[in-house]
Order: sequence, then structure tokens, then C-alpha cells
Amino acid sequence: MRRFVADKAKYLINRTRTTCSSPSTSTSLLHRLTSSPSPSSSSKSAGVLRFLSTDSMASDYSSTPVTLNNVNPKVLKCEYAVRGEIVNVAQKLQQDLKENPGSHPFDEILYCNIGNPQSLAQQPITFFREVLALCDHPLILDKSETQGLFSADSIERAFQILDQIPGRATGAYSHSQGIKGLRDTIASGIEARDGFPADPNDIFLTDGASPAVHMMMQLLIGSENDGILCPIPQYPLYSASIALHGGSLVPYYLDEETGWGLEVSELENQLKDAKSKGINVRALVVINPGNPTGQVLAEANQREIVEFCKKEGLVLLADEVYQENVYVPEKQFHSFKKVARSMGLGEKDLSLVSFQSVSKGFYGECGKRGGYMEVTGFSPEIREQIYKVASVNLCSNISGQILASLVMSPPKVGDESYESFAAEKEGILSSLTRRAKTLEDAFNSLEGVTCNKAEGAMYLFPRINLPDKAIKAAEEAKTAPDAFYAKRLLNATGIVVVPGSGFGQRPGTWHFRCTILPQEDKIPAIVSRLTEFHKQFMDEFRG
Amino acid sequence: MRRFVADKAKYLINRTRTTCSSPSTSTSLLHRLTSSPSPSSSSKSAGVLRFLSTDSMASDYSSTPVTLNNVNPKVLKCEYAVRGEIVNVAQKLQQDLKENPGSHPFDEILYCNIGNPQSLAQQPITFFREVLALCDHPLILDKSETQGLFSADSIERAFQILDQIPGRATGAYSHSQGIKGLRDTIASGIEARDGFPADPNDIFLTDGASPAVHMMMQLLIGSENDGILCPIPQYPLYSASIALHGGSLVPYYLDEETGWGLEVSELENQLKDAKSKGINVRALVVINPGNPTGQVLAEANQREIVEFCKKEGLVLLADEVYQENVYVPEKQFHSFKKVARSMGLGEKDLSLVSFQSVSKGFYGECGKRGGYMEVTGFSPEIREQIYKVASVNLCSNISGQILASLVMSPPKVGDESYESFAAEKEGILSSLTRRAKTLEDAFNSLEGVTCNKAEGAMYLFPRINLPDKAIKAAEEAKTAPDAFYAKRLLNATGIVVVPGSGFGQRPGTWHFRCTILPQEDKIPAIVSRLTEFHKQFMDEFRG
Repeated sequence: MRRFVADKAKYLINRTRTTCSSPSTSTSLLHRLTSSPSPSSSSKSAGVLRFLSTDSMASDYSSTPVTLNNVNPKVLKCEYAVRGEIVNVAQKLQQDLKENPGSHPFDEILYCNIGNPQSLAQQPITFFREVLALCDHPLILDKSETQGLFSADSIERAFQILDQIPGRATGAYSHSQGIKGLRDTIASGIEARDGFPADPNDIFLTDGASPAVHMMMQLLIGSENDGILCPIPQYPLYSASIALHGGSLVPYYLDEETGWGLEVSELENQLKDAKSKGINVRALVVINPGNPTGQVLAEANQREIVEFCKKEGLVLLADEVYQENVYVPEKQFHSFKKVARSMGLGEKDLSLVSFQSVSKGFYGECGKRGGYMEVTGFSPEIREQIYKVASVNLCSNISGQILASLVMSPPKVGDESYESFAAEKEGILSSLTRRAKTLEDAFNSLEGVTCNKAEGAMYLFPRINLPDKAIKAAEEAKTAPDAFYAKRLLNATGIVVVPGSGFGQRPGTWHFRCTILPQEDKIPAIVSRLTEFHKQFMDEFRG
Repeated sequence: MRRFVADKAKYLINRTRTTCSSPSTSTSLLHRLTSSPSPSSSSKSAGVLRFLSTDSMASDYSSTPVTLNNVNPKVLKCEYAVRGEIVNVAQKLQQDLKENPGSHPFDEILYCNIGNPQSLAQQPITFFREVLALCDHPLILDKSETQGLFSADSIERAFQILDQIPGRATGAYSHSQGIKGLRDTIASGIEARDGFPADPNDIFLTDGASPAVHMMMQLLIGSENDGILCPIPQYPLYSASIALHGGSLVPYYLDEETGWGLEVSELENQLKDAKSKGINVRALVVINPGNPTGQVLAEANQREIVEFCKKEGLVLLADEVYQENVYVPEKQFHSFKKVARSMGLGEKDLSLVSFQSVSKGFYGECGKRGGYMEVTGFSPEIREQIYKVASVNLCSNISGQILASLVMSPPKVGDESYESFAAEKEGILSSLTRRAKTLEDAFNSLEGVTCNKAEGAMYLFPRINLPDKAIKAAEEAKTAPDAFYAKRLLNATGIVVVPGSGFGQRPGTWHFRCTILPQEDKIPAIVSRLTEFHKQFMDEFRG
């Protein structure tokens, strides 16, 4: 113990000498960036820092080995706007509001930047959480009190799931693809959805859809000559993942005029162009329903896309995480696998990966990090490579695996939970439908703004025709015009949206992505603040 | 519905035509590889497959776009022996035993290949699971029945944790580094362990330690000229991750004669050698306690290592996931951060990353995929890059985050759960100590086998001096001699170990890794089966 005290004293003296940098350097930016407004944020170490004298303001990190000059350049190149600069500013404003209430012309930050429903007070589906809790603590399954706390079918389901796990060990690593019994359940869910067989050995359970996307990019990208066709606008996971793996993003533009239509002629042109530049295009990413664009593809269009991939020898990477988020009666979600099979294409005719997640849908269980990919049309040798990469990380988290099985096999008519489950589901989806429509109408009522319908997913992507004066002001502020608008919006209203430049857009057009996720009682305030801000903005910058 | 039926028929006809490959091709290997012995393994799709005629035996995947020739070569290069070929054989044997009991000279497979305690019937720590269940289903926190089912301190802890989560939303994405309040708890736990301050802003919560290691490799490796010094033998996550990121593994050999000693002179020699080959060595990996080697570093040795990293400008990547697994009274775990701070080195004097996991320790919660890295001594610019990479995957799973906070702040004296918690912990650790000793003695009693003590971690890594005749037989079987031994062992006894060649070893020496995790009542059978097998093996191959 005496040794500890002596060491600690030595440490403090040394730290005083070497580590105290000026709070006005970029360190403080990082601290803002990495600190949240939790009341417990003043840790002991912060207390220690207060002892330190400031006679070493000049000290810096110049002797540390990793610098911007020698860090992996692919990491530098990667960008992820959904949690980018504007969110950091929002977090700082939130802290300000807490420390100095009334310091801004709004009293709360309204996060419309990210598809994170439960952060905006959406409640979890009760049945799912009951089953998860019981699987986490199976010792209570046989206790009499449990009958009073949990529905009968959640208890039954927990027993079923535990029986599928070797040794009932929910704390053990599973098979690298996920627990076989849960994959059986998911495959049955896919069969029920599509009307075509699904094989549990094609399912790879993952910590959300993102690691699954990374895994496929890792497989397909060997060098910058390997290209991936991605929609523009796109969800920036794709551009980030392609950058991290050192490949080339080959853009294809969605047609805003036709409701973000996906034209095969555009795919053909871009593929041809990429080939002429020596890019070996490996795969086509399609996000359906669209993120950030909200369109739902028509089945005939999907058939054309499947044909195109087959003809051109491209892997079809189908981001289908919003498959349960469709808000218009005239559209329906069809999985690409169903479309391909209904065209008569079998396992070996098309290399297709479908991504699904527990983060989206009506359940929105983002924090559980559950998801899967269904991998079809790859040779056994390549499947072994995918399996190997999955196995290096051992397995995805078991709660997420269980949840993925639950979303693909929810309570059925006759189950004790069915009615409450159906009411929770319907409540969320019908409310999302109303919110999408209200926000769409609000955007379309603004001067110089046009906004396609959110047929599905969780976003609107309005286009703003910014006045030249605003574009010039943005240039002077060294920022993209849409980021300029979004920052102004944030500072004036507390509403956080993501500038279109984070997703990509046709050159010379400006957009932002706004989620439809704030609870319904917040929507009128969002509409009125936004409308007022936009009018003032246009008054300030109009020609 | 009629459409579905028609499509399905079309699909089945097509599938018959195109997808039915011979079961004797490597497809069947993959199916073995990806299927588990769950009773529900006969899925509907398997039923569908039985309809298929076999007139298309020649059909294959030759028209699919991804082949071994165009897949990312880094993926091909990556190997991960812990879940490699021998485990696939074991799974097949397990299936055989189930379908044909008595078909092998043993009645169960004894998995000693992987540090997965709960898969071998180790029970979870009750307090941890109580808190997780309550956080998964907070609706029951206020119910009277809950008092009868859960300990008072687990209820209190769940309330505390929920209060740290914005909106109590355990289903929301968190801050990309993890929930701030949980990072505060972890930082306090590190401070209590080390006697030096820890900053919650230095903590990055991750889905187990593996993604954290990948993140650092991604940061440090830009090309094959970037090298990482790794111990040999090493845990193959490191070689796999370096291969996947396209860097160079620079080996340094642990000295088996001195109990797997880590000599700085060896580090210096290997560093010099790598530099002479044009390798830019970026970091040193140290695994303490050692995996697969089980040694616990002496503090004086750790000080030398720290000095070496500082002098040579290397990032110190400290794998400290076995910090609670020490089995000998003469050794103690010291974190590298504590050692560095006690040497008077501050934040900017050493770039140090410490990896911790909920999968190991006495709790062994592998399936929960929780862990963190504590990142110190990196400039704010580089920290922003690490943050950005973390943010692309949004956040780690919240249950894993909660569990990581629990293992760093378990019940304390006076808490209702303390006594049962302490008894569970002591029961597991003392049993592991006995198992380590029994297995070590057993290995050392075998002809031509020497085995260092497992001072810590969960493994023994005995050396087998194989007779020339066995080495020759292995060559004929086109397999490494230690893999030859391990396969023989598996087929004769059902015991699964991992050949030393999966971890690396001095050329011409042969080892295998054997966990100490089977429950104590299984140990006598393992010892006797192993002893008998080894005698027969030596009788067969002895000169």
C-alpha cells in the first residue's frame, strides 16, 4: 500500500510536469465530443486534474507515435455524417441548455438526425423484452412470482429458446453463424414472408446489420480497383465501409423527379463508365425501402435490378432493414430473394445477400445490436471464407440473436400476448405514417423546398433550393451550403438534421435528412419552429 | 396467394434444374461446418431439398461472380485455428454420436479448445444476470413480485444504471464510446484496481475485446509495410486481424525454458530485424496473463517493456482480458497503465491501449459480447479518428455495456448479494486453480511432454516431443505434426485441443493448447483418457 501511495505521488508530480495542456487547445474539442451530459460526468480524474499546475501549457502529444501522417490513410478518408460534426454541436448545445437554461432560443434539442426510435421515447415491444429478461436470468423461470410478472407465452418462448441453446448457456459463445435453433426460426420467418424456402445454414447472425455489411465489403474489396455500385443518396455506412476497406464507390443516382426512382439505364451507364476507368465492379448495393430517400421499390423494378446483376455478374447487396416500415397502401415490401425466386432464379443463378436488423421496423431495438444476413448464391469455398471471417469475432451477442429470432417470429393469433403485441405494433406504425405525412406536407409548404413522400423507412429527404446569397455565405464560412443551412437551423431551433452532403446528392442540389421519429406530441412544435426558421432564413438570403 | 403458389412451383422446378449438387462435393463439408447438432436441424428447406431429383449433379457455382481467384486475398490469408478444422471434425463426431450412439470409443466430445466457460456448464454470476434481466424489462422494477425474485441490490443497481441512460432507453443506440455513466463506473473500477486516475473519456465500450483489437489494427496498419510485434505463441485473433488489415506480423518468441519469459533483448533483435527488412513497426502486442501460454508477467519485466515501447516509439497494445485469472500466490496482475504511471510516465509519454472483456475472468460471459478498451497517450486528432471508426458501427450492445460496468464494480461488503457473489467467485476461481494444477501435473507425467504452469488465463500449452516416426506420418498425411497428434487424440478420446501451429511456436517444436475449463468432475476422465491415448500413441510411433 505504501508503494502505491509513493507511486501515486510520483505520478501526480510527473503528470503536472508533462500532461497538462491548455484547455483551449483541440483537447477541449475532443472532450466535448466524447462527453455526454450525464450528471455523473465529473469523475475522480477530473478532480485530480484540478490539482495540476499550468506551468506546462506548451506540452503536447508531439512525442507520441501515432500522427495524422502515419495513421492508416483509409481511416482518414472514411466519413460518417450521421454522427458527424453537427451532432457534436448539438451535444454541446444540450450541455449549454442544461448548465444555462434559457441561453438559447429553444428549450430542448430535437434529434431528427438518426434512426434511433427509443432515444425519442418510443417504448419497446413488451413481449420481446419479457423473453429477453427471462433468457438473461433463467433461474426465475420456475418461480411462482414469475407467472404474475410475465405473460404465459413469453415464459413458454423463453423455455423454447433455452432448449435450442446447447446447455441452455446464454453466456456461452455460440456457433459463429449464431445459434442453430434461432437460425431455424429465422429461416421459417423468411419462408413465411416470401413463400419460398430459406435455409438456416444461409443465415449469419450479426451485431446489427453494420458488421454484416463490413464483412461483405471485406470479402469483395481487395484493392482500390474493386468497385461497389451504391445509390446516391446513400446511407453513409456504405461509403464509410468502402473507404475503410480501400475500395471504390461507384455512384448511381436515384431520380428525385420520379420519387427517387432507380433506373437500370443509369446503372448501365455508371457501370460502363467505371469499367472504362479500370474499376472492377463487384457488387450493387440497393437500399429498399430507401435510406435516406424513403422510396419503396416496385416489384417490376426489382426484377430489372435482379436481371442486371445476373447479366453483369454482380453480387446484389440488398439492405432490407426497413422491410416492416412501409406507410403507403399502394406499396408493399418484396424481398429481393422472393423476387429472384419468383423469376425462376435459383441458388446458383444470383449471388444475393439480404441484410436485416432488429434496430429498425416498428420495434426499433437499436441498442440490442441484433441482425442477420441471408447469404445465397455463393460457392462452398467462398461460404467457408465468410464463415472464417465471422469466426474471428467468435459470434454476435446472444441477446441480439434471440431478438432477431423474435422479430422474425412474433406472437401469433391465439397467443396470450398477441393482442397487446398487435396493438403496440399498430400504434407505432400508424403513428409513423401520420408523422411522415405531416412532416412531408410541412416541408412542401416551405418556399423553395420540395419533398418526396416517405413511402417507407424512417426519413424524409427534402430538397432546398438555396438562394445564391446563402450559397455564397456558406462558401465564406467554408462549409457546404446544406451544412450551413442545417447549422443555422440547429442554432435557431434545436432541431438536428443531417446535411444532404453526408449522403451524396446530384451536384448543385441541396438536401437534408430528417427522421420521422420524434413523438407525435413534438411534431407540431417541430413544424412551427422549422417554418418560422425557414421564412427568416429565406428573408435573410433571398436575392 | 395463387401467385405465390405458382411462383413456388416454378421455383422448385428451377431449383431442381439448377441447384442440386452432389452431396459428396465440398458443399456437404460446408453443411457439416455450419450445422449444429440441435434437434430442430431438419428445417422445412431440408424437406424441400428431398424433393429434388439428382439429374443435375454436374451443376455448380461456376457462373457465380465471387471465386477464390477474385475474393480479397487478405481474407484468404487470414487463419483462425481456435474455430478451425479440428473443431469442424469434433462437431461432426458429436453429430455421429447423437445419431449412432456407441459409434466411437467415447460417449461425449470434451471441448478443451476454446475459452468458453459457460458452454462447459459454468453457471453465470447471479447478481450480474439479475441486473441484466431487470434492465431488459424495466417495467417489472416497480412490481411487488419483483422483490421476491430479485435481490435488493440488483434492483437498486438496475435503477442506478437506468438513470444513467438518457431516457432510460436500453433499446437506443448509445454514445459511440458507450453510455457515459457506465464509462464513469468503469473508470472508477480501474482507479480502484490501479491506484491511479482513469478518465471515462478514455474508455471505448466494444462488443467483446475482438472488435477493439480490430479497431486498433485498422488504425495502425496502412499497408504491408506496417508491422505489429506479436508474441509467439500468440492468440490467433492477432495474426488474423493483422492479415485482414494487410499488415505484417513481426514475431517475438516467448522463452519456454523460463516459463514463457518475455525477454527485451528478443524484442530488440526482432525489431532490428524487421526494420532491416523495411518494416515500419507500429506497435507491440503483449498478452498478460498469457494466451495460450498462461504466464503472468512480473512487474519488473513490465517496466522493461514499457521502457522499450517508449524508447522505440511503439504503441503498447495490452491484452489484459485475463486480469482476474491468476492462480498462483506468488504472482499478481498489474495493469500496464499502473506500471507506466508508477514509473512516472504520464498521458503523453506512452501510447497505451488496454483491452478488457466480460468473456473471461471468473464470470466468463462470452455470449454477452461486452468489453472495453482504455485508450491513453493518443493526440486529440488521433482520438477523433478512433471515435469516428467506432461511430460507423454506432455503438456496442447495451447489455454488454452494462455487464462491463458490473464486472468492474461488483457487489461490495454489506450489499445483500455480496456473500453469494463472493462465494460464486471464490468457487469458480479456486476450482480453476485446482483444475490447472491437475492438468499440468497430468501433462508433465506423460512421456516426452513438458508443460509450464498455468499461472493465469485459462490454458495450458504443453510441449510434445514427437517421435520422428510420428512426424513422418504427419508429413505423409499432409498435416502439421501437432495437428496430426491432436486429430488422433480427438478421434481416440473425444478431447478437442488446438494444435500449437495455430498459435505459432519455435520451428521444430510442437505443442497444443488445452483449456482448464471442463467441470471438475470431468477432469479425472480427461486425465485418464489422455494418459491412455498418449501411451498408445507413443507405443505406435516410438523409434
